[in-house]
Amino acid sequence: MLTAEIICVGTELLMGQVLNTNEHYIASRLTEAGVALNHSSVVGDNPERLKELLNLAKGRADVIIMTGGLGPTDDDLTKETVSAAFGKKLVFHPECMEKMVSYLKEAGRNLTKNNEKQAYLPEGCIVIENNNGTAPGCIIEDGLKAAIMLPGPPREMVPMFNETVLPYLKKKSGMVLKSRVLRLFGIGESRAALMCDSLIKNQTNPTIAPYAKEGEVTFRVTASGESEDEAQRMVDEACEKMYEILGEYIYAEGDDNSMARVVVDTLKKKGLTVATAESCTGGLIGKMITEVSGASEVYGFGFITYANEAKMQLLGVKKETLDTFGAVSEETAREMAEGARRASGSDIAVSVTGIAGPGGGTEEKPVGLVYIGVNDKLGTEVFRFVQHGDRERVRNKSALCALDIILKRIR
Amino acid sequence: MLTAEIICVGTELLMGQVLNTNEHYIASRLTEAGVALNHSSVVGDNPERLKELLNLAKGRADVIIMTGGLGPTDDDLTKETVSAAFGKKLVFHPECMEKMVSYLKEAGRNLTKNNEKQAYLPEGCIVIENNNGTAPGCIIEDGLKAAIMLPGPPREMVPMFNETVLPYLKKKSGMVLKSRVLRLFGIGESRAALMCDSLIKNQTNPTIAPYAKEGEVTFRVTASGESEDEAQRMVDEACEKMYEILGEYIYAEGDDNSMARVVVDTLKKKGLTVATAESCTGGLIGKMITEVSGASEVYGFGFITYANEAKMQLLGVKKETLDTFGAVSEETAREMAEGARRASGSDIAVSVTGIAGPGGGTEEKPVGLVYIGVNDKLGTEVFRFVQHGDRERVRNKSALCALDIILKRIR
Repeated sequence: MLTAEIICVGTELLMGQVLNTNEHYIASRLTEAGVALNHSSVVGDNPERLKELLNLAKGRADVIIMTGGLGPTDDDLTKETVSAAFGKKLVFHPECMEKMVSYLKEAGRNLTKNNEKQAYLPEGCIVIENNNGTAPGCIIEDGLKAAIMLPGPPREMVPMFNETVLPYLKKKSGMVLKSRVLRLFGIGESRAALMCDSLIKNQTNPTIAPYAKEGEVTFRVTASGESEDEAQRMVDEACEKMYEILGEYIYAEGDDNSMARVVVDTLKKKGLTVATAESCTGGLIGKMITEVSGASEVYGFGFITYANEAKMQLLGVKKETLDTFGAVSEETAREMAEGARRASGSDIAVSVTGIAGPGGGTEEKPVGLVYIGVNDKLGTEVFRFVQHGDRERVRNKSALCALDIILKRIR
Repeated sequence: MLTAEIICVGTELLMGQVLNTNEHYIASRLTEAGVALNHSSVVGDNPERLKELLNLAKGRADVIIMTGGLGPTDDDLTKETVSAAFGKKLVFHPECMEKMVSYLKEAGRNLTKNNEKQAYLPEGCIVIENNNGTAPGCIIEDGLKAAIMLPGPPREMVPMFNETVLPYLKKKSGMVLKSRVLRLFGIGESRAALMCDSLIKNQTNPTIAPYAKEGEVTFRVTASGESEDEAQRMVDEACEKMYEILGEYIYAEGDDNSMARVVVDTLKKKGLTVATAESCTGGLIGKMITEVSGASEVYGFGFITYANEAKMQLLGVKKETLDTFGAVSEETAREMAEGARRASGSDIAVSVTGIAGPGGGTEEKPVGLVYIGVNDKLGTEVFRFVQHGDRERVRNKSALCALDIILKRIR
């Protein structure tokens, strides 16, 4: 098995100014690619310490993957240090210079004297193109070993890793990998993992890796085999077992299928439009829907009715309803959803009203109490939730629940 | 200066299943506490590799801070490995056992045979109480050096770090620290850092640390001194110089003062209300404003007018305006802002219309073109921006620009 080591370079990481998402991203992709990661470290913009680490890493890993320190300023010293450690000279790459000039031109910026330094790369290296910044990356090969350098900013690093590094590593490891990503909603990570504990624990191929992010849980099932068919068959068999255990929670598959994307795609397929009426989520559902490029086909109208006057004026919620039952009530959620559909002429409307906290809770209506209404031509349904966690979590879970309710309704 | 090294133990980190937020949290608190961090690494649940790392760390840091591997199962081996490296025996701590029993009882769970292992700690250690889980932490002292062990789950680790480890480190370092955080908008991190390059580079006390996140840039200025007064005076002097250079971009101070919070607080102080009319940001501005607890005092109405019909129906934008100038135009932004104030009765209204991409751009109206309108009793102003970056960045920067425009208008 191919072994790798990650070294993230940057004083900002050691100062705690930046969360090291690069390590996590690369680690998870290496696992999928069947590459073993035994060490990962962070070091500041300090050539001496980087050199020491490099010497250690050369002795214990086949591939060293570095991020950061490729910028234009004097403290960016990764290339210089790594080249020296591998006995390579830095040479000017005119094609990198041209690429940089055209990138900067497009971004409306000028080349500075500093940028020139970024076009110097180790002799004989494989260049990794950067379409989202000025710093090119590179791969130095030394016998069977390799040192890979990537820029620090994730929006530059991630595409470069996927487009160039991952295929390079897959080829080097000589294995064929297949994977599927199952996306779950309505269950926590630990409970989901517990439910398929025996599947996760007793398998090394395929591997089943759970991952939780903002209310959604995903499982990545990856198998390696000697042929595509063999790997695919192994993945499919494991996924079948996962569906048997967790099927009711799986709403989609795939890396990019956020709940909002699945909602937008399903609405498109059915030729339906949706409207939102948000109180405690304050625009969050609209934001999630419009994060999906092309959402305008299915989403035209959103109402942020944070005040009671807004609920009455924009959605026609009755004063009597608000006075009798309160803004956070089944009745208000119902009238909000109905009003949003009426005012927008959309096919379906969803409403959210609740107490996000930290203030505003009572014994009868605690922080976290949220009503979600949905209305279409078949009528109205209102769901009651008590969400746990802080303001951000309550809002986030409520918005996802609203999307889930739309999805279930239109499916 | 006291030096520290972080070692995070856990195969799940190297598999990319868990994002290492502990490293980031500890690193940022160490910076504030004036402790230098030169190395940070991740190692799997592997005693041999942990031992090697410990031997390296002992030679280069005063304090080794470890997280993870204190659980009840067989692969949790941090205590065993560290105790051996420091020549300490593990001894039974009855008070830890009692604490664990009462913690589990409260959580409605039973003690398992495995838990007993967690009450064994190195002889002569300082015990770190855990109020959110079963695993106690501990500090081993060896001459002037110290090894600190904490559990991996952040909701257990963070309070233990703050309650016990941070005071321990502050006492050990013998320094008094003061810091101020300056918050900037309207300038990129690299340009801001370049403008005060001489201040950042030539100072080790105070330190000036830039940090960029989602369009905002902050500088944390930290000084250590022998008295509170001395440290405060040094911070204030450095901040004064920062204001001379970057004053026009500094919109607030403090750790928690997001742009949205400053807008909400300033509106409150002035007794004003705001309404939003969003096209390309699709609810993001509303979401940002309502992230601030208590926003309901200043924000009641938001309009997500993603479709032209919504702009006409909800905001009274004229069909003629849309036909003649298009949805993304100065004229539409103007009518959106005016319509939002009229329809809501708010004191001030802001509107955003633009092309977030990736599709929809033309030569005349490229992706990233955004108009932001603001209307109050004094009239209407419209600002034109061309934002660079992907869909998420264009939307995020536009929302922050809108908040900045509100702030400038009401100040």
